[in-house]
Amino acid sequence: MKVYYNAPEQGYAPQTSFFQGRFTPCPEVPARTRSILAALGAHAEFELAAPPPLEAAHLAGVHDAGYIETLRALCGRLKPDEAFYPFNAQPLPLLLRSPYARVRMGYYALDTSTPLLPQSYDMALSAAAVAAAGAEAMLAGAPLAYCLLRPPGHHAGRRSYGGYCILNNAALAAQRLAGAGRVAILDVDYHHGNGTQDIFYESDAVLYVSLHCRPEEAYPYIAGAEEESGTGRGAGYNLNLPLPGGTDWAAYAPALERALERIARARPALLVLSAGFDTLADDPIGSFALRVPDFEPMGRMIAALGLPTLVVQEGGYHVPSLGPAVLALFTGLGLLPAGGARLHA
Amino acid sequence: MKVYYNAPEQGYAPQTSFFQGRFTPCPEVPARTRSILAALGAHAEFELAAPPPLEAAHLAGVHDAGYIETLRALCGRLKPDEAFYPFNAQPLPLLLRSPYARVRMGYYALDTSTPLLPQSYDMALSAAAVAAAGAEAMLAGAPLAYCLLRPPGHHAGRRSYGGYCILNNAALAAQRLAGAGRVAILDVDYHHGNGTQDIFYESDAVLYVSLHCRPEEAYPYIAGAEEESGTGRGAGYNLNLPLPGGTDWAAYAPALERALERIARARPALLVLSAGFDTLADDPIGSFALRVPDFEPMGRMIAALGLPTLVVQEGGYHVPSLGPAVLALFTGLGLLPAGGARLHA
Repeated sequence: MKVYYNAPEQGYAPQTSFFQGRFTPCPEVPARTRSILAALGAHAEFELAAPPPLEAAHLAGVHDAGYIETLRALCGRLKPDEAFYPFNAQPLPLLLRSPYARVRMGYYALDTSTPLLPQSYDMALSAAAVAAAGAEAMLAGAPLAYCLLRPPGHHAGRRSYGGYCILNNAALAAQRLAGAGRVAILDVDYHHGNGTQDIFYESDAVLYVSLHCRPEEAYPYIAGAEEESGTGRGAGYNLNLPLPGGTDWAAYAPALERALERIARARPALLVLSAGFDTLADDPIGSFALRVPDFEPMGRMIAALGLPTLVVQEGGYHVPSLGPAVLALFTGLGLLPAGGARLHA
Repeated sequence: MKVYYNAPEQGYAPQTSFFQGRFTPCPEVPARTRSILAALGAHAEFELAAPPPLEAAHLAGVHDAGYIETLRALCGRLKPDEAFYPFNAQPLPLLLRSPYARVRMGYYALDTSTPLLPQSYDMALSAAAVAAAGAEAMLAGAPLAYCLLRPPGHHAGRRSYGGYCILNNAALAAQRLAGAGRVAILDVDYHHGNGTQDIFYESDAVLYVSLHCRPEEAYPYIAGAEEESGTGRGAGYNLNLPLPGGTDWAAYAPALERALERIARARPALLVLSAGFDTLADDPIGSFALRVPDFEPMGRMIAALGLPTLVVQEGGYHVPSLGPAVLALFTGLGLLPAGGARLHA
């Protein structure tokens, strides 16, 4: 199986996040992918591949051109060691009139969590290139592929960034795959993928189904409620399954079953799996209680859909668990032999 | 003339503001009022008075109850040395469902500029009490009164805070005065009073007229454009006169003349003057080029309206100039004898 990967991400190390009045260490770090790469390295089933570069113009179906251009302009003006946070963070049109990219950027900010560094634009584009390459592989007939990338994407909306996400990698892949038939996105990250929901909220070409911690308790707070079910042509093509803090596999599995039933009913041609691992009990951000071995039955349940599946990396912040959890997932998905206990060490 | 003043503000000293990724020193400091008090102290014409306390229930006509309650709850939960900044800063309804005041507060935040301290709620209420007392004095027949207070108010909207403003003191005064006839608010702060505009945008009972640096260049960025002229019954009762950076008295005076003509045409019974002094050339935040003596002709032009006038303190951050500028203004307003050069030292 091909693993598309943007190796330059190893040089992308945001130091801080701004959270309720304090700078906190940013958990979205290069060690995350190193943990995964180390685990994959032991298995010949994973073939690493670099994606071809992606032109910004190819983001057009997923992201607003003004957002992309402002992001590019802002990053180009940051000092080498600077981390930009928005000042105004509201989509109020007057902000767009300002000659200052620092002011315009506030229009596109969901919140103050996400530092923008001078390399953020290039790095987000390289992650999107991974997703585009993964989509190409699926269109060429691959039954399974993995987009290993940083920064993650599912919080980035059509014209918004936040939650360490800048461009929506999974949404870009889904939009490209939608040419081949209906696409379902299953988002198992601990956090609701408000960005993905936003991008496809009026579309029935892409079904978005998310299991996540309920917005009353968890980031992004602003989206993820059960009653958000799509609008216009997209009515009924958005399913949120919010779960309370403390959810373990015994409580998670029935919700996943509901998610998979909805996906099966939509008869999609392809599945995009937004694979976050911050549902693990040890995750420093999440409050769920999944264990590494739980990702194997999760993978099995997903594989039972019988759909070509593109796995796109999202969150997960307990570094030592990431590699083993990815292996457990791909074991469940049938890539690795079952019962490989050494994989979950 | 009575000068209503909330003396406890001397104990309210926010240290930081969060601006585009950095903590910067907060310019809204107790030394501001000390500068003014020192200047007033030399003149028997100013009689300091403490306002009676104000119940939060009396804010109902100006501020949303949910905002007030969330602010109260949040401040009550902060640690003694804590400065809270919002995380999500968007009025998205789901935020209000959260059990966490820190999350709900984001619904009410305009931006990340304004620290909330444990005392912020009490202090903002004490400033609002000053404005209420000033309004009472006007209703009792005073021709002129001065509300000397911190924190300032004109950026605080019906359900929003920002720009060092928490409760809208001038709006509270105007709303109380509106029982006695139409009220005009003239806002000469360097920054647009987006909060005051918001509160009266649909009302013809209160005319809002503002001179300020144009939003393309200056905070609050999100409001203050010329085309914002009111809506519904308030259509035509909001006049923004945005001016470019560098504006000096020669360019300011004709705009002020336009503002005063509009006010005269509305035939108000009373005037509330939102008096900011950050139009001064030395102001560390503003980019205008007024001089201290310019506030004397400014006062004269305003006095020529012949309206009972309640002066409400807003911004102004060049501490040494504040006292002299206030004296110049009240000289122009006719309280102090003209030509008192020593006042402008």
